[in-house]
Amino acid sequence: MAVDFTPDPATLELRERVRVFVRDEVVPAEQEMLPDTGTGPTDALRQRLQRAAKEHGLLAPTAPVRFGGLGLTLTAQAEILREAGHSLLGPLALNCAAPDEGNMHLMHRVATPEQQEKYLVPLVSGAVRSCFAMTEPSPGAGSDPSMLRTTARWDGDAWAIDGRKWYITGADGAAWTICMASTPEHGGAPAGATMFLVDAGNTGMRITRHIGSLDTGFTGGHCEVVFDDCRVSPDAVLGEVGRGFAYAQVRLAPARLTHCMRWLGIAQRAQDMALDRAGEREAFGQPLAGLGMVQQMLADSEIDLAACRHLIAHAAWLLDQGGRARSETAVAKTFVAEAVGRVVDRAVQVHGALGISYDVPLSLFLREVRPFRIYDGASEVHRMSIAKRAVRRRAAARSPQ
Amino acid sequence: MAVDFTPDPATLELRERVRVFVRDEVVPAEQEMLPDTGTGPTDALRQRLQRAAKEHGLLAPTAPVRFGGLGLTLTAQAEILREAGHSLLGPLALNCAAPDEGNMHLMHRVATPEQQEKYLVPLVSGAVRSCFAMTEPSPGAGSDPSMLRTTARWDGDAWAIDGRKWYITGADGAAWTICMASTPEHGGAPAGATMFLVDAGNTGMRITRHIGSLDTGFTGGHCEVVFDDCRVSPDAVLGEVGRGFAYAQVRLAPARLTHCMRWLGIAQRAQDMALDRAGEREAFGQPLAGLGMVQQMLADSEIDLAACRHLIAHAAWLLDQGGRARSETAVAKTFVAEAVGRVVDRAVQVHGALGISYDVPLSLFLREVRPFRIYDGASEVHRMSIAKRAVRRRAAARSPQ
Amino acid sequence: MAVDFTPDPATLELRERVRVFVRDEVVPAEQEMLPDTGTGPTDALRQRLQRAAKEHGLLAPTAPVRFGGLGLTLTAQAEILREAGHSLLGPLALNCAAPDEGNMHLMHRVATPEQQEKYLVPLVSGAVRSCFAMTEPSPGAGSDPSMLRTTARWDGDAWAIDGRKWYITGADGAAWTICMASTPEHGGAPAGATMFLVDAGNTGMRITRHIGSLDTGFTGGHCEVVFDDCRVSPDAVLGEVGRGFAYAQVRLAPARLTHCMRWLGIAQRAQDMALDRAGEREAFGQPLAGLGMVQQMLADSEIDLAACRHLIAHAAWLLDQGGRARSETAVAKTFVAEAVGRVVDRAVQVHGALGISYDVPLSLFLREVRPFRIYDGASEVHRMSIAKRAVRRRAAARSPQ
Amino acid sequence: MAVDFTPDPATLELRERVRVFVRDEVVPAEQEMLPDTGTGPTDALRQRLQRAAKEHGLLAPTAPVRFGGLGLTLTAQAEILREAGHSLLGPLALNCAAPDEGNMHLMHRVATPEQQEKYLVPLVSGAVRSCFAMTEPSPGAGSDPSMLRTTARWDGDAWAIDGRKWYITGADGAAWTICMASTPEHGGAPAGATMFLVDAGNTGMRITRHIGSLDTGFTGGHCEVVFDDCRVSPDAVLGEVGRGFAYAQVRLAPARLTHCMRWLGIAQRAQDMALDRAGEREAFGQPLAGLGMVQQMLADSEIDLAACRHLIAHAAWLLDQGGRARSETAVAKTFVAEAVGRVVDRAVQVHGALGISYDVPLSLFLREVRPFRIYDGASEVHRMSIAKRAVRRRAAARSPQ
Repeated sequence: MAVDFTPDPATLELRERVRVFVRDEVVPAEQEMLPDTGTGPTDALRQRLQRAAKEHGLLAPTAPVRFGGLGLTLTAQAEILREAGHSLLGPLALNCAAPDEGNMHLMHRVATPEQQEKYLVPLVSGAVRSCFAMTEPSPGAGSDPSMLRTTARWDGDAWAIDGRKWYITGADGAAWTICMASTPEHGGAPAGATMFLVDAGNTGMRITRHIGSLDTGFTGGHCEVVFDDCRVSPDAVLGEVGRGFAYAQVRLAPARLTHCMRWLGIAQRAQDMALDRAGEREAFGQPLAGLGMVQQMLADSEIDLAACRHLIAHAAWLLDQGGRARSETAVAKTFVAEAVGRVVDRAVQVHGALGISYDVPLSLFLREVRPFRIYDGASEVHRMSIAKRAVRRRAAARSPQ
Repeated sequence: MAVDFTPDPATLELRERVRVFVRDEVVPAEQEMLPDTGTGPTDALRQRLQRAAKEHGLLAPTAPVRFGGLGLTLTAQAEILREAGHSLLGPLALNCAAPDEGNMHLMHRVATPEQQEKYLVPLVSGAVRSCFAMTEPSPGAGSDPSMLRTTARWDGDAWAIDGRKWYITGADGAAWTICMASTPEHGGAPAGATMFLVDAGNTGMRITRHIGSLDTGFTGGHCEVVFDDCRVSPDAVLGEVGRGFAYAQVRLAPARLTHCMRWLGIAQRAQDMALDRAGEREAFGQPLAGLGMVQQMLADSEIDLAACRHLIAHAAWLLDQGGRARSETAVAKTFVAEAVGRVVDRAVQVHGALGISYDVPLSLFLREVRPFRIYDGASEVHRMSIAKRAVRRRAAARSPQ
Repeated sequence: MAVDFTPDPATLELRERVRVFVRDEVVPAEQEMLPDTGTGPTDALRQRLQRAAKEHGLLAPTAPVRFGGLGLTLTAQAEILREAGHSLLGPLALNCAAPDEGNMHLMHRVATPEQQEKYLVPLVSGAVRSCFAMTEPSPGAGSDPSMLRTTARWDGDAWAIDGRKWYITGADGAAWTICMASTPEHGGAPAGATMFLVDAGNTGMRITRHIGSLDTGFTGGHCEVVFDDCRVSPDAVLGEVGRGFAYAQVRLAPARLTHCMRWLGIAQRAQDMALDRAGEREAFGQPLAGLGMVQQMLADSEIDLAACRHLIAHAAWLLDQGGRARSETAVAKTFVAEAVGRVVDRAVQVHGALGISYDVPLSLFLREVRPFRIYDGASEVHRMSIAKRAVRRRAAARSPQ
Repeated sequence: MAVDFTPDPATLELRERVRVFVRDEVVPAEQEMLPDTGTGPTDALRQRLQRAAKEHGLLAPTAPVRFGGLGLTLTAQAEILREAGHSLLGPLALNCAAPDEGNMHLMHRVATPEQQEKYLVPLVSGAVRSCFAMTEPSPGAGSDPSMLRTTARWDGDAWAIDGRKWYITGADGAAWTICMASTPEHGGAPAGATMFLVDAGNTGMRITRHIGSLDTGFTGGHCEVVFDDCRVSPDAVLGEVGRGFAYAQVRLAPARLTHCMRWLGIAQRAQDMALDRAGEREAFGQPLAGLGMVQQMLADSEIDLAACRHLIAHAAWLLDQGGRARSETAVAKTFVAEAVGRVVDRAVQVHGALGISYDVPLSLFLREVRPFRIYDGASEVHRMSIAKRAVRRRAAARSPQ
């Protein structure tokens, strides 16, 4: 038991297989990912890639083995999801993209065996997609979840959900939705928020539109979804009534970390491209790599990438040890979301006009990573929480015992 | 003669008319500007808006009066083009958008009366569009213009241009092109670069494709253009043979400043939206405007905007006085290009998920302003030039006289 | 009446005289300014330099002519104080250093003719120094002036002041002090804060210590001062009872701007040194000025300095026109305080080990400018105020009229 | 063998003992460390603290056991030196401060057993101090070591060293010096640089002055040292003739990492102070910790500190595994040097005027950490090297095998 940075050999072997798979099977498919459809990769493309991943034994690395996944630790996921992230289509191909990947984790931790059989198993196999309906348009729940406006009331027979959700990623085409709603006291449970599983066919749930968005990498796009007297039976409750906010944390702590892993893959690819370009393109009588301001950009990105890797690895390891790592995951998320933005931005700059063209995927990366400073908790909200925890931690350390 | 920041009353009056025009006529037309067509506003939209601007007496503010423009000084342009820039369509509507606006200036300064009659007059009136073909794909002229690969040779009868240009903004649909080519010694003129006027119908010039690009605000998009034994007569030479690089400076010094003015308008609109949002949207029990981290973003943008306005105003005034203002325009361009990026980015962040949706134009602004750190001289190239001039200026100040 | 950046010829002539005076008389005296005494330049040095300045007709540029000063506008001061600021001793030599310079302004605006005769005239001539006692140690008034704890009560005969002040610049050796105290309702005036003039000999006022400080440029240092039943007569009231906070603004708006001017002089000198060094010192086979990362530092400083000059000039001009320029002075102060820090820091870095030695004054500059982000309103407080004003301005612009 | 972040229990136990020792024995002695003597802690203070450390079994944690040290791995040193670094006097007390600590490492790796007995053993025990004379004043060796001007020539009998060194930390009072000089071909060894051990009494070596410096934490200060026909016998050669540059790397790779560890301790203490202050001091009706801009500073410092810890830990572990970790140590050094500067700077800002006073040690920390961006390779030099290695690594990864 001592500090050791040696990756597990099995993880390294798996990572190499993912690298080759992404290079040979996924990157070529990027041609089919049009930047400006607004609805992301098609389900047909997703299914084709996931079949290929399954053949290579790479499907669902984050899901437990008993549900059909590879059952990796978060420490191993850090290597695998980053490698997959080299292509915007990589996580989708391996079925470890948001929001499904987070839903797999939540269903594994909170759902009943029946719910797992019905919802989780086909999700892991890639037979279906899912979505997570929490965020609401202003003045509802955004950065401040306590502003939740969607409600569910028990009418003696069923729950009836009413409200409006938006930026629900992957809603169009999802077989089922986890919907977060505010619930009153019920059957001994206190008032709070509750999660409900809603099937796609439910007539009380309606996708009203696709929201055009800067990023375009998610199958099913970002949708606005209306719940209008949407009735679900008691067995649609996920976990216990009134514990929705706690479950949101169960989902988010690892979900924001897996997001970091995937996004770091994008940043690494951007930096690889910048290094290649700097070694090849000449200006002012020498390769770009000989120019000080280019060196500065390249070096700053090397530094950013190294810091990202370590912050993710540490938080993942803490979660693997059973810790909650609230501060560490927030630190990692905040830093990584901003660092990947910087790295991609520098890669664009090193490429000059080529960098902002769609001849290379850097512009697409730029569009894809910007929202990460807002998704999964805006940087400002994480900073507030990091600071408050640090002040409390320090006060506790100083108080008389 | 003393420092005076009072804007000219006529400029203020004109600015107010532009403000109302943009609000009432241009902003509503933004609905027709689809983010993802890749080819920018259509010519039909352009013509409709320019007719409206003409009716309001606002067309071609930068062009000399004798060619049909409003003949404003650069100092006045700073106010008017910024106001127009509040909408991505504003400069187009007023016919002071790139690349036409820069070409008007260059033709005014360098072209023969015949060339001005034939090319400049219809450009100012909005009858036609034009483009400027300088940049080349790697390994040609990008940040380092000395790498120019396109050549023109004199065959005793005509000039024959050969080469490949790219990121030629507005090429598709342009009535004529200014093409920069390397020329050997000719008729007493030394070897150097020469500018040629090439008509759209010339069979030796071919638009080979539209280059997909992060920004989408330019009519005619960004094109790749091939010159293949493209023959033009001696009267197609713009100015003198061999002086192309000097003319590029004639065009660029004011052109990069007018770019700053227009872009600053975008940033100002983004900040206005952020201020509105911060005053209205609540989180954590108060308006966003009461939260320290939001205040910091808003204040930093106020500071950035103020600095941009002054750097532009000063450089514009110097050029109006007949100065070359090489350092001042480079300083303004470098700072403004980066500052508008920061301001728009902060406005996105203040808006949260709304900011990255196309429900508001901020995402579009983000895409539009990023290339400005590359267009018209990458920030790195300007910094190199600013530093070298400063070192020389200082050495001169210290040398014995 | 139109935008004009031409400096007044008389100002230019005066600035040139200040430049020569600083170069020939002040810079040589820097040898006598020991970094680590903690009490700043001595009064003997101050008096010698001020005599020299008087002989050159340069004394008290900011004070009105009728009190013995040069009566410059703030616009002219921007040029003169910046030039003086090239040496840490320059403003002292010209008798336009803090806190005296701010006190001159306040006394000019608020004091009675008798008070002006007694206090202001000898201050302008350099016969005496003064100080301004507002800031208190925790938990008293710091960034938040409403936390003022020092009190003055009227006992029917005299005012009795009680409290503790700290970071009172120049207190040791000051002939008189302006003390800010909280006062109850009195003679029709509402409860509020009141300013009192306290003579050095008053036995109720005691300098308890010099506070060691990062900066060491102020004569008299930074002191802790205790008021213990400090009795002053009614004619010691400066202005009206209860209006102390308003007077603090009267003092601070121009005072923070003159601070910017002086500090900008330091930054300009640091940049001059960096430019010289970059042109002379070689590394990696070329002058530092040929290395990209050095060019980036030099260029960023050129940009920062240009922005500082313009933000100061504009705010100064607004105040000269009679405006309050609350937002503009706050913007200038916040940007300049941070920019001068960056410029000096870069100059240090360009100098390498030499830069952190006392062989050149850059280390001293670094120590001197850091506090400016805290003095005269911390950057955070200014940002809060800038943001709030901007939100209100925007809300007003949109409200129906 | 797998990733494991669990610190070794023995290291944790030792770290706790260091924490208590620093708190109880070292911090109280900080009162004796006057900021402005310019010569750092006295030898008397050093000896007293080192005796105390020896009694607690904490002396020389980095030196091998057989020379009297604790023989810690770099991984363990990361914990111990950071903990010691909480006080500027901590590393001195534990005899693991620069330059002695780096010299111990170099002597351990390169010196003969006789040299180790004579020089290293008394160094480890604290009986003597040493110094390392490499840097030269302009135009000699600074950031670019190839500019070495000091020479040593063999006169058939002895080596004669001539040259001028500066910023030689700890030279005043050092019992011996390692001097780097340029040597011609000699006895089969190629021309290059060679290291020599010079005893304090050597009449050819003269300390000409103390260089006043922004930082003041090193015993013996920073000196200028002149070698004037300084004669040493052949057994004064450290390692082999001509291999001086290689040995400099042997010394610097771990030395720059231990520097990071110590400096990170300073930053951690600064952040602890900021957290305490934010929890206690009130402004605008709430504790500072409730204000968004303060939260942002605190959170950014938490993020910086976490990234520092991981970058150091990883590089240390790599060196422990026998790797050269050239890129990783450069990345860590560059990031840490800048991050500790930011953390200390934010702590100052959170403290307001108190932060720039010497009532708390933050100003001293600020002065102490600034040079770290220059010492042990300026950030710019490291960035150049990081970028070049990354480009090469990438090119190698892509080349056909």
